[in-house]
Amino acid sequence: MENARIEKLAGIRERISRHFSQGIMPFWRQRGLDREYGGYITCFDASGNWLPDDTDKYIVTQTRMIWGFSLFHQHQPDDPFYQEAARQGVDFFIEHFWDTRHGGWFWKVKRDGALSDAGKVVYGQSFAIYALSQYYLATGDQRGLDYADRTFQLLQRYCVDVARGGYYENLEPGWRLSDGGFHAGDRKSLDIHMHLLECFTTLYKASNLEIHRRRLGEVIQVILRHMIVPERGCGRNQFDLEFNPIPPIAIRRTWNAERKGELAEGAVHTTSYGHNLELAWLLLQASDIMGEPRTTYGVVIQRLVDHTLQYGIDWVNGGLFRDGPYDGVAIVRDKEWWQHAESLVGLLDAYILFGNERYLDAFEKVWEFSDRYFINHELGEWRTLLTETGEPIDPGLGNPWKACYHTGRAMSESLKRLDYILNRP
Amino acid sequence: MENARIEKLAGIRERISRHFSQGIMPFWRQRGLDREYGGYITCFDASGNWLPDDTDKYIVTQTRMIWGFSLFHQHQPDDPFYQEAARQGVDFFIEHFWDTRHGGWFWKVKRDGALSDAGKVVYGQSFAIYALSQYYLATGDQRGLDYADRTFQLLQRYCVDVARGGYYENLEPGWRLSDGGFHAGDRKSLDIHMHLLECFTTLYKASNLEIHRRRLGEVIQVILRHMIVPERGCGRNQFDLEFNPIPPIAIRRTWNAERKGELAEGAVHTTSYGHNLELAWLLLQASDIMGEPRTTYGVVIQRLVDHTLQYGIDWVNGGLFRDGPYDGVAIVRDKEWWQHAESLVGLLDAYILFGNERYLDAFEKVWEFSDRYFINHELGEWRTLLTETGEPIDPGLGNPWKACYHTGRAMSESLKRLDYILNRP
Repeated sequence: MENARIEKLAGIRERISRHFSQGIMPFWRQRGLDREYGGYITCFDASGNWLPDDTDKYIVTQTRMIWGFSLFHQHQPDDPFYQEAARQGVDFFIEHFWDTRHGGWFWKVKRDGALSDAGKVVYGQSFAIYALSQYYLATGDQRGLDYADRTFQLLQRYCVDVARGGYYENLEPGWRLSDGGFHAGDRKSLDIHMHLLECFTTLYKASNLEIHRRRLGEVIQVILRHMIVPERGCGRNQFDLEFNPIPPIAIRRTWNAERKGELAEGAVHTTSYGHNLELAWLLLQASDIMGEPRTTYGVVIQRLVDHTLQYGIDWVNGGLFRDGPYDGVAIVRDKEWWQHAESLVGLLDAYILFGNERYLDAFEKVWEFSDRYFINHELGEWRTLLTETGEPIDPGLGNPWKACYHTGRAMSESLKRLDYILNRP
Repeated sequence: MENARIEKLAGIRERISRHFSQGIMPFWRQRGLDREYGGYITCFDASGNWLPDDTDKYIVTQTRMIWGFSLFHQHQPDDPFYQEAARQGVDFFIEHFWDTRHGGWFWKVKRDGALSDAGKVVYGQSFAIYALSQYYLATGDQRGLDYADRTFQLLQRYCVDVARGGYYENLEPGWRLSDGGFHAGDRKSLDIHMHLLECFTTLYKASNLEIHRRRLGEVIQVILRHMIVPERGCGRNQFDLEFNPIPPIAIRRTWNAERKGELAEGAVHTTSYGHNLELAWLLLQASDIMGEPRTTYGVVIQRLVDHTLQYGIDWVNGGLFRDGPYDGVAIVRDKEWWQHAESLVGLLDAYILFGNERYLDAFEKVWEFSDRYFINHELGEWRTLLTETGEPIDPGLGNPWKACYHTGRAMSESLKRLDYILNRP
């Protein structure tokens, strides 16, 4: 690697490190705790002001905040703040989200904890496992691992599709399967199976139990067998219960549907560049934690990343597009925060695995766009949605689906990889 | 139906009723209880004498005796004996077979209950669910349903193959997957999936829980999708984990392997006529208990039974053969007790469903052979194994795999069906 590149990466590393510890961490430390009711507040406008009309607490962001504060505690273990911030969130989460009758976690509560939506969504359950396992790893609080494993067991009991493999994703109170269509009881997706991969990885790391490892290996097999386009190497999006690919629709209790409502018309097959790169690095992380060779999923990872290099990276403006066809230029060309965060990690992993600096070119393109347009440096968090060229569409810094998980994680994971690339201890 | 046939069936009904209440029930009442250690004794020679060298207690026969005594209690509820006989067996079973560390049931203990083989075999777990659900239905003892559901949950946690569907069948202490080959951690089978169908049916009947119904429906789907020969309608035998059919081998911890040892050479694809007819009536029973139309699996049932009528029934000597190719005459032509017991029920169901007296012809062929050669009328139980023409090969009346389950159940189930056919209340 040339000196100019080393210096450039070293500079990026310093910016990322500073943004993480002096931007993201203080942003959420100052704003993220609900000191009146417990749990977390995650809805903030472009000026970092709390949006008091938007007070429902979602499983997704409550768990992501637990996860994030657990991570922050690992970075600053001598500061008692973050551990306590995570603990009080776990308290609130267990008290108000846990279904004492049927087991598992509700979808949504009011700010004070009053039940608002008792649906059982596997996406939400997976983040509970992920957050509680991470909380256990960070703090040693046994409740974290206990509830994570209880949730794992409930997924095995109620959500596995024993006839066809994989998991049912959308269930209602009492763990009954949801209806079809907008309720998506008749669909499976890469998104949810990828987040099961993610949470089983951390659960296995926390428990070292063989059954957690086995289920992790199986969900990887489901993804590899059914959810990648063989000819192109990119991920598919949605499937029927038999894993036949079907054009994706907006689904209830998802970020897209909450923004736009029920929109089923005009659905066409697309792939998500952000999911592809997130899957790439999560696969590598899983094989690392399972003690498998780093080459185990090498071909899969390389093709996922190469597809994004070809179609997903915006080599002109920087950053990366949201969605596109399996083979052709991107069609959803605005820029969203989380795809940028996840792709940073995936691109660094691709460089480490394959040694091709083209992946570093892409990493720099995504970082520079993020640094310039997404990050609100004054306040310390990322904007939500931008145009192709970086103008704000949604400059908000937090919402019911956006907290410190994608941004904080991407900074933490990128730092580790940049230190490795730069030969730092 | 002609009068001659009605009279003939009425006569058979009387013989079956008498054999059940004056043969099978007293045989096991007098001999089946281990009054020294608790639990059951099941090994008896041709004269009905206990074989004291053969004292290991297997999960398969301990649970089948619990199931049987529960059934007997339902037939004679005013007699306190059978309920108590079942209860003490449940006591022994929970005390000595339950794995208090990992959950689930051991494979084998010594006569006094000392652990002998801690393997976790899904075949055995399925009979635990079946027996404990039936015991709960017969007695109301909540322990039965509680342990049945706990076992169900452990199957979901440890035995489902989430990548490919269906269940892993052979596991070791701590629920680790068994090795391949003779240990069969790399195989799936119709046999075990059929017994899961059987036990989930009774569990759902006992619990009325939606998840038990869902898992029942799924295991039926696994069987229908993968385990029937589409061109012939008969069942396949063994599969790799992907459900590719592979020639069956003897497998550790099965009745065939215990008789003959490890025999993998010369394996060829065969179908079991007894399993096919057992599957036929268990499918119908499952659809009844799920409240589905009786036609739901009608085509599957008809083809299973018709294949046996064509190749399995011995129209010359009576009875039915054991195994044969998918398309051609039977190759394992000796006669075994359990296939005869199960086929009686399946053939009566086929007549009730389809109205063709050819099924009654076959029923009479199997009953008359059983009545004449299998049943030891003096002592009240069935011999184990006979030649094609009825000479005893193994005239023993009980062994580590043979108790009162196939014979008692066949008599009870046949009585119900004959009463229906004969329009009796």
